[in-house]
Amino acid sequence: MNGAEALVKTLIKAGVEVCFANPGTSEMHFVAALDRHPEMRCVLCLFEGGATGAADGYARMKGDAAVTLLHLAPGFGNAFANLHNARKAGSGMVNVMGEHATWHLQFESPLRGNTVGISQAVSHWTRMSTDATTVADDGAAAVRMARSEGGRIATLILPANTAWEEAPGGPAETAAPPPRRRPRPADIAAAAEILRQPGATLMVGGEILAGSAAVLAARIVSKTGCGLMAPYFVPRQRRGAGSVPMARMVYPVDANVALLADRKTIVLCGATRPTSFFAYPGKPSLPEAPGSHLIPLCDPEMDAAWTLGALAEELGAGTTPAGTLTPLDLPDLPTGLVTPEKVGAALAALLPEEAIVVDESVTASRFVWAATETARPHDWLKTMGGAIGDCLPMAAGAAVACPDRKVVALTGDGSAMYTLQSLWTMARERLDVCVVVFANRSYRILHEELRNVGASQAGRNAARVFDIVDPPLDWVALAKGHGVEAVYAGESEALVAALRRGLGEPGPFLIEVPC
Amino acid sequence: MNGAEALVKTLIKAGVEVCFANPGTSEMHFVAALDRHPEMRCVLCLFEGGATGAADGYARMKGDAAVTLLHLAPGFGNAFANLHNARKAGSGMVNVMGEHATWHLQFESPLRGNTVGISQAVSHWTRMSTDATTVADDGAAAVRMARSEGGRIATLILPANTAWEEAPGGPAETAAPPPRRRPRPADIAAAAEILRQPGATLMVGGEILAGSAAVLAARIVSKTGCGLMAPYFVPRQRRGAGSVPMARMVYPVDANVALLADRKTIVLCGATRPTSFFAYPGKPSLPEAPGSHLIPLCDPEMDAAWTLGALAEELGAGTTPAGTLTPLDLPDLPTGLVTPEKVGAALAALLPEEAIVVDESVTASRFVWAATETARPHDWLKTMGGAIGDCLPMAAGAAVACPDRKVVALTGDGSAMYTLQSLWTMARERLDVCVVVFANRSYRILHEELRNVGASQAGRNAARVFDIVDPPLDWVALAKGHGVEAVYAGESEALVAALRRGLGEPGPFLIEVPC
Repeated sequence: MNGAEALVKTLIKAGVEVCFANPGTSEMHFVAALDRHPEMRCVLCLFEGGATGAADGYARMKGDAAVTLLHLAPGFGNAFANLHNARKAGSGMVNVMGEHATWHLQFESPLRGNTVGISQAVSHWTRMSTDATTVADDGAAAVRMARSEGGRIATLILPANTAWEEAPGGPAETAAPPPRRRPRPADIAAAAEILRQPGATLMVGGEILAGSAAVLAARIVSKTGCGLMAPYFVPRQRRGAGSVPMARMVYPVDANVALLADRKTIVLCGATRPTSFFAYPGKPSLPEAPGSHLIPLCDPEMDAAWTLGALAEELGAGTTPAGTLTPLDLPDLPTGLVTPEKVGAALAALLPEEAIVVDESVTASRFVWAATETARPHDWLKTMGGAIGDCLPMAAGAAVACPDRKVVALTGDGSAMYTLQSLWTMARERLDVCVVVFANRSYRILHEELRNVGASQAGRNAARVFDIVDPPLDWVALAKGHGVEAVYAGESEALVAALRRGLGEPGPFLIEVPC
Repeated sequence: MNGAEALVKTLIKAGVEVCFANPGTSEMHFVAALDRHPEMRCVLCLFEGGATGAADGYARMKGDAAVTLLHLAPGFGNAFANLHNARKAGSGMVNVMGEHATWHLQFESPLRGNTVGISQAVSHWTRMSTDATTVADDGAAAVRMARSEGGRIATLILPANTAWEEAPGGPAETAAPPPRRRPRPADIAAAAEILRQPGATLMVGGEILAGSAAVLAARIVSKTGCGLMAPYFVPRQRRGAGSVPMARMVYPVDANVALLADRKTIVLCGATRPTSFFAYPGKPSLPEAPGSHLIPLCDPEMDAAWTLGALAEELGAGTTPAGTLTPLDLPDLPTGLVTPEKVGAALAALLPEEAIVVDESVTASRFVWAATETARPHDWLKTMGGAIGDCLPMAAGAAVACPDRKVVALTGDGSAMYTLQSLWTMARERLDVCVVVFANRSYRILHEELRNVGASQAGRNAARVFDIVDPPLDWVALAKGHGVEAVYAGESEALVAALRRGLGEPGPFLIEVPC
């Protein structure tokens, strides 16, 4: 067999099931090898950011890495933004990037580019195969790396000749990833002691919020009386009825400073140190109160669920008190002109059990978040790296990972434009995604940020780059162009009818709301 | 004034007139400064590749650099593919990439990324400003670099505080770029001597083909009897009636080998060494005949037009013989079902004088190219780096540069999907672009390439990643969604009517042809 086939067999043997692909000629032998292995599901994305964003959503919901197949240098460039997001989410991913044959690299062909350089600018791990005989081992190493520390970005660069030349060794075995790191017992005991003191807060994030470990945090609070808080950016959070209610950080700096004003100590478990999203003149980069102490007990890369369990045991926090978990409490259906609040209420009322909400609705997000707190049980995925354009791809990937669950994609119109090609992938794969586009016809957050820097009103040039009017985007037409049915809902009654259809019937559906 | 304003004033003082922008919060002070300077035209692109592709088209037609305004790391990632193309085209460009405030970079905020690393993977020149007081000088250095060697990619990374802090020195003066390098007189004399020998070929490219210098090549041929050839990839080529007819290299390796089979010596002037686009098993990376000699007289970065003039003078090639230049010869209008040949004929018949054709029609390109050889005088721009998705952005940029000329964008459906957001920019700016989408509903070239690697027919997985059917893309709806009028033309008669409208009336218009 050739190197490409040895690699594909290695990936399949390792349990990798899905390849999100946007290949070109340099990846042709890899495609030919996939052709002989239909047990690997190939999902075509018409833009590379659609592939990496889908792999991000897939990894968060499947808890395992997918493969992406990307064209050399510029193709990887198109994939970069959602690799950045996936990196910040801790989503495991194996990127197979094509490359010219090794001997062809000395010539200045049109597509020759710095494949290693661009990969290293975002991947945790980059390797260029040098020989067909080692490609299988390289692939096994990439999968192992992608599965390590909860999920890493591993990029394997595959010169074309390493794919088409003979690989007599065949596929390789993929070793298990190294065990997640854990804090020392002394550090756990010290953190427990701190949480017993007044003014202490436990901040949990990462995998703790994704699953059942969150209840351990509630037990610790009940036992010690400490505060409990979640970061603003969480890759996957369990929410709705039966979940652990939790305050969370927010986006604006001043509000975060206020939230942490009286927290003397903060124990971080599965969460990184709270940091302002941007720096602003005269505002702090760190929202924590001056003189407060942060104890980084356990990074998100470490074994956070185990650590929280050890902490609960150390504290003797064994039972979940009655009334701790979020009750089911559905709002009335809204009426009249749609607003973000009303979209939130309609969604909260109608969201089916075990829905997956993918949220990149930016300025509308806080309203929908608040409204759905007591909705039916669901998971909430957020764009983690601040690079807008992750929502539609991530929704596609989550739907591939969880075909039995409804995915709801909440996106701003500005955000959705970066990767609208994912609508086509939803149609092609009949993915069960209901998209809600908040069409406020502007990068509204930038209007807010311009005020933050002291300009009271946008002038001609600022308005020209903040507003998406003249012409307005027509999301019903854009969806139709990609093969996705869509409706416009300006009134809540129309929105409710549209949501009933989008949430109740299988396959992709898009709703444009003017707010 | 602050650093951002000093930078904007520096750019304007240097004669930079247009900013293709997709900003975020970290660029807010730069936007605020632009707001106070409406003499800089800001063109909003809804995706960063739209901005850099537009700057590519602008630079090719204006002969000068534009500025792009890009969001930090992931935003630059989205811009990468068309930066790669612009780099290969020798298009000058100043990218202003935002960055966090210098002191904020120590913290792991969501958007923190390797801005320097990703820039260096594609830019000729990268600098991160360290201080507001030097931002103006950094901007002047960036413009000078962008204008050097015919056009370079210069990226200035602007930490937010260097934009908002005081810059008491105000704007800086931009020095002229260093003079283009020229070959030594002895090298010109030696090349002239070679061209006098039998079996010699002159290969001209770069700026020579863009303008009047091409006629010097015709004179040299007339004087010496040498062969004349152009590369396949040319950033801007003068074509149609009155232009210099010229054979050119092609895409397939075997055909290129045949073209160069009896060329003993090839003098390169403004052209790089011919190289196969990809490597294939058993095919050469270099199409030149074994034992032939290539003389790299003048790279595209050097002063190629001057060099060709010196060569003509050395050879005493002073006059253009009658009948050398391409005559006007328009084909009949086609009838019946559209084919790429018929689209070529219709376009050749109707193309207005001084049209700018932007070509990324991939498998359809050769038919339209052949048909338009004797059309009315026009310029032809080709995607230079092989990264598809440059056509619609480049067409937008060319239209901004040349508001008095009709721009015709020829694109495959697969290609156009990478940067379809540029349609909106065409509508917003009322750009005079007629787009023809060759909707063959596949990455047809990949089907051809799969055959090249020995697989006779695509199996399930290959078909799934090569075909854009199920659902078909509806380009009329996609255009409408972006605010651009569009029609579908399955018959030549409908195509002719559509072209009459698209070429005759101002503003953007899109025609979908199923071939």
